[in-house]
Amino acid sequence: MAEPAEYEPISIDRAAVVGCGVIGAAWASRMLLSGVDVAISDPSPDAEAILTEVMANAVAAWDDLGLSTANRGSYVMAESIGDAVANAQFVQESVPERPEVKEAVLAEIEEAAPTDTIIGSSTSGIRATVMQETMTNPERLVVGHPYNPVYLLPVVEVVGGEKTPIEVVRRAQGIYAGIGMKPVHVRVDIDAFIGDRLLEALWREALWLVNDGVATTQEIDDIMTHGFGLRWAQMGLFETYRVAGGTGGFKHFMDQFGPTLEWPYSKLMDTPEYTDELVDTIVEQSDAQSGMHDVRELERIRDRNVVGFLKVLETNKWGAGNAIAEHRRLSAND
Amino acid sequence: MAEPAEYEPISIDRAAVVGCGVIGAAWASRMLLSGVDVAISDPSPDAEAILTEVMANAVAAWDDLGLSTANRGSYVMAESIGDAVANAQFVQESVPERPEVKEAVLAEIEEAAPTDTIIGSSTSGIRATVMQETMTNPERLVVGHPYNPVYLLPVVEVVGGEKTPIEVVRRAQGIYAGIGMKPVHVRVDIDAFIGDRLLEALWREALWLVNDGVATTQEIDDIMTHGFGLRWAQMGLFETYRVAGGTGGFKHFMDQFGPTLEWPYSKLMDTPEYTDELVDTIVEQSDAQSGMHDVRELERIRDRNVVGFLKVLETNKWGAGNAIAEHRRLSAND
Repeated sequence: MAEPAEYEPISIDRAAVVGCGVIGAAWASRMLLSGVDVAISDPSPDAEAILTEVMANAVAAWDDLGLSTANRGSYVMAESIGDAVANAQFVQESVPERPEVKEAVLAEIEEAAPTDTIIGSSTSGIRATVMQETMTNPERLVVGHPYNPVYLLPVVEVVGGEKTPIEVVRRAQGIYAGIGMKPVHVRVDIDAFIGDRLLEALWREALWLVNDGVATTQEIDDIMTHGFGLRWAQMGLFETYRVAGGTGGFKHFMDQFGPTLEWPYSKLMDTPEYTDELVDTIVEQSDAQSGMHDVRELERIRDRNVVGFLKVLETNKWGAGNAIAEHRRLSAND
Repeated sequence: MAEPAEYEPISIDRAAVVGCGVIGAAWASRMLLSGVDVAISDPSPDAEAILTEVMANAVAAWDDLGLSTANRGSYVMAESIGDAVANAQFVQESVPERPEVKEAVLAEIEEAAPTDTIIGSSTSGIRATVMQETMTNPERLVVGHPYNPVYLLPVVEVVGGEKTPIEVVRRAQGIYAGIGMKPVHVRVDIDAFIGDRLLEALWREALWLVNDGVATTQEIDDIMTHGFGLRWAQMGLFETYRVAGGTGGFKHFMDQFGPTLEWPYSKLMDTPEYTDELVDTIVEQSDAQSGMHDVRELERIRDRNVVGFLKVLETNKWGAGNAIAEHRRLSAND
């Protein structure tokens, strides 16, 4: 079982978002729509335009879901990281995925933020323990790894490093829960956490299928969206297999399926050589598959679909729908 | 792009289902609800009870989706495989996944079925080319690999063996399309086809996460159902990543993400030792996660959720919803 009652939702008034690309902007949007004032730092001249676009999507999605968008926080584009974090009760860092950039940005955050302000990092590839090595107050760092669209998908993986006390993890979980999220505590600080390890396994196998000419991107995506993808929006791998096992119980399933692990089906031992040719093949196939929609259009389609799923799940009191119901309850109590 | 207009839906009147476990019963249910008369062969005394239960789920799901369940075919529990297939225009084989069983059953089917009757095998692990080795008329065999619940998830992977002419593949696709499915032609006869290779990759990685104590089944499932699972019911891996790549195009995404393949994130090189201890751990965790619902209840929850998703997708004219719309159009023309 997940850890019940080990954190309570915490309502904060002021947060900072450091790095305002697609992920940072979606964090800011979720915070703003939750009534949190957000100070944003990003050196790019495009940052505010990205925020505006992502926020418009977020407002549309929340309206469609029937979540209130009336009590919004206000945002400011800060002149510097120091300005952004100086009064923040929580900082979410979403800068580019390069260790030296993370190190420099964390140093700037630490210099100006109150010492008890927790810093959540959106990294999907760098361990908290590694980032802590160069920090002055490493005990305040957690990884808070979201899934895009951050304003809509509830999950965030919360990972402490070796120097992060459990109380800080719990407080971070509380803050994420306070903006309507489902914070899953990843108890071991491993590379890529949980979700991205699963995604990477699937991604490598998909690359092999394309590399070997077995399937196109369209065929792979069709098999997902018309098959097991429809299962995973509402039951995960294990619960799905539990159902597949039938009334014989999960042991029956494991006994049946386990031995096939030894069969040489998938090409997991190795990765395809990442040649220009493979890249071009995949890009061409993706263009043929989806090039008729631009990305903004795809985002709107995606959001409309996911909103619909979430409404269904909420009505059915299941899975991600429970997180929305809880979010709605929290919003009503504000 | 998938192959447009390379097959047309074909309406048949009489089919045989050989093997009536959960998968076979779901095939029979989909056929019956599509107005096809079905002769069923299964040596188990439980076969008809399984059919009755699965059919009840299928009727509820189709009613909920607003698909007509009025013009049903009739079924008969045949005395033998020969009796079941003697007048069939199409045979779907769903017997246990053991090569010697498949071989014997295919021989019995061939002995009695009209020579131009196509045989679709539900196997998820045995290649068509291998099954063809012992057949008298191997040219009539395809793999038609579905995803459960077969009466609800539209996808079926259609794979010809070395001795299957493309015309037979196309006709099989037409027959599957005629019962409301989206038949994806897998052009290379590889072990485990496409979907199961992807599933196996994810499954192995999930086993590692549990094996290493990084995550529980509940945590893994939560991350899926509250995160990327909500994406894959409506956009597959590649289309999702295309959106993630933003306006820079898919090449930009590939250039960013590709190099991380070399990083030692996932444990793909190897499989965990399949010990009793690992099995017990996973079974215990699954019990804790889902043991409060019995499997029949989980099936009903699953179906209600998937029905809701499909309605959403149909309204949004997207993904699997288009298959339902096409199915509805076909039903209206009957």
